[in-house]
Amino acid sequence: MPQLPISELPVSALIPAIDIIGTFVFAISGTLTAASKKLDPFGASVIAFVTALGGGTLRDVLLDVRPVWVQEEKLLITVFVSVMVTLLFRQKVEKYRKTMFLFDTLGIAMFTILGLEKALRFGVPPLIALVMGVVSAVFGGVVRDILCNDIPLIFRREIYATACLAGGVAYLLMRLAPVPGEVPMTVAVGIIIVIRLLAVRLKWAFPNLKPEEENISL
Amino acid sequence: MPQLPISELPVSALIPAIDIIGTFVFAISGTLTAASKKLDPFGASVIAFVTALGGGTLRDVLLDVRPVWVQEEKLLITVFVSVMVTLLFRQKVEKYRKTMFLFDTLGIAMFTILGLEKALRFGVPPLIALVMGVVSAVFGGVVRDILCNDIPLIFRREIYATACLAGGVAYLLMRLAPVPGEVPMTVAVGIIIVIRLLAVRLKWAFPNLKPEEENISL
Amino acid sequence: MPQLPISELPVSALIPAIDIIGTFVFAISGTLTAASKKLDPFGASVIAFVTALGGGTLRDVLLDVRPVWVQEEKLLITVFVSVMVTLLFRQKVEKYRKTMFLFDTLGIAMFTILGLEKALRFGVPPLIALVMGVVSAVFGGVVRDILCNDIPLIFRREIYATACLAGGVAYLLMRLAPVPGEVPMTVAVGIIIVIRLLAVRLKWAFPNLKPEEENISL
Repeated sequence: MPQLPISELPVSALIPAIDIIGTFVFAISGTLTAASKKLDPFGASVIAFVTALGGGTLRDVLLDVRPVWVQEEKLLITVFVSVMVTLLFRQKVEKYRKTMFLFDTLGIAMFTILGLEKALRFGVPPLIALVMGVVSAVFGGVVRDILCNDIPLIFRREIYATACLAGGVAYLLMRLAPVPGEVPMTVAVGIIIVIRLLAVRLKWAFPNLKPEEENISL
Repeated sequence: MPQLPISELPVSALIPAIDIIGTFVFAISGTLTAASKKLDPFGASVIAFVTALGGGTLRDVLLDVRPVWVQEEKLLITVFVSVMVTLLFRQKVEKYRKTMFLFDTLGIAMFTILGLEKALRFGVPPLIALVMGVVSAVFGGVVRDILCNDIPLIFRREIYATACLAGGVAYLLMRLAPVPGEVPMTVAVGIIIVIRLLAVRLKWAFPNLKPEEENISL
Repeated sequence: MPQLPISELPVSALIPAIDIIGTFVFAISGTLTAASKKLDPFGASVIAFVTALGGGTLRDVLLDVRPVWVQEEKLLITVFVSVMVTLLFRQKVEKYRKTMFLFDTLGIAMFTILGLEKALRFGVPPLIALVMGVVSAVFGGVVRDILCNDIPLIFRREIYATACLAGGVAYLLMRLAPVPGEVPMTVAVGIIIVIRLLAVRLKWAFPNLKPEEENISL
């Protein structure tokens, strides 16, 4: 089961750039979270690293292949450049939140579909490949919150997993049809971005569950 | 080193059913814990997933093979059915705690021995296979507690790891004797169930350690 | 990509002994942390295990090979002997902190360089091998703190990661020069030990980051 280079995916030539941009923006998010917890620069680097690369790492470990960042230095370097820039220009970075939010949304959309596609290529059934895609996009943020000793944000107020799922389902349907060329990727990424932006604008959220009686401790 | 299908294990034809039942019951436990923490349905699904499948996943990653749920959809589907049933009929589910406790005990007993056997088949030394068996059974609950920001329950009040260890040792001794057929599995599972039920009934527990001076920070 | 036995590394015959000693001392650290959190002996064993073997395990999972302790029983046995000794002679152990601190420093220095060397041998680029070396040395302590529900100590007050990085860089430069024989290992380990002892003596630390505004939640 050879590991396919990302360049063989049937998708746009923009992917390497988007991979780098997504990693860069996720690393900013991690650095700012770390700073808000009063960590030191070393801790901030670690948090930035897991936020940016944790999702893809888990996906690859589950696929039983070596994670991409272990083979190629560019992602690791991207994280550290991102941390340095963020720490040096923290106040400016905080001003560009809206722009970053757009890049971030683009990043998770791309990560979802790329992760799904990679899992399919390694022989994973479609339903599970869908889960792998979402894991690629959201797991980094989960580990960031665990390391910072919070209950992961995504578990309390669902922000983007549902958008990723919807885009992933659309991608799978088009891919299995099959719709040729770059159409499935483009449409699916569009769906994720639109749902997420609407969700934030309209404050969509699942209702939180109410604790009733004591839960069963197994 | 090919990954053996579970059906080649020298054990009862009930295993697929028990695998599903164990996964279903563990997922209920995860869902109820998530609800008690006021997570949303997405968070509850994730917690249910890791509670049910986390142990086997860690075992397989350590064995350097692809986890079972990545290859077959039935376990993933079981988890999501379990979450939906639990959320829809939460009050009824809470009434059947005792029945579930029995299924849960059966599940961890089976998971322990199946995990141990799988590790042996992949060439792991017996002592380490024993640890792998216990990890298969208990690690899911540990991750559930970490994600919910608690110190894992099992570290504070040991509930079933010792039972799993005792059953695992019995299984290894019978297996290496060798006792033929389904006897080792049946006896070992029985030992785990009996010890666990006695432990709960008689409130067996290790004494907690007392903090004395400050610990060494390495 | 065959997994090289540790004995083929171009380093001193003392390595097996140092591996055992490092594991033993890290396990003491884990046990004492667990005791300070009032865990029971089972929980203390788990914490000791992840403190001692967690770093090497993560490194090997990322390299997509089976962790050493899964193949050889000696490391697992070392951990459990260490836990038992620590729990039986806790007050005495706490007296020998200074001696243990020296062993611990030697252990992390060796773990860093051995981890780096192992990654290089499995075809990982030098910069990433450096990260793998540091991960081998420090990740165990991170998981220990997460399991005990603390923000990892190393993120708040950097204690040894920088020393490991410095030693690792020196090792890489000598190794790529190439400086022959055991010189790179010996010098690099010396550098790590000296920097760490100076850091502790002179209370070197990075400044903690200040939380400014709210961080961006992605």
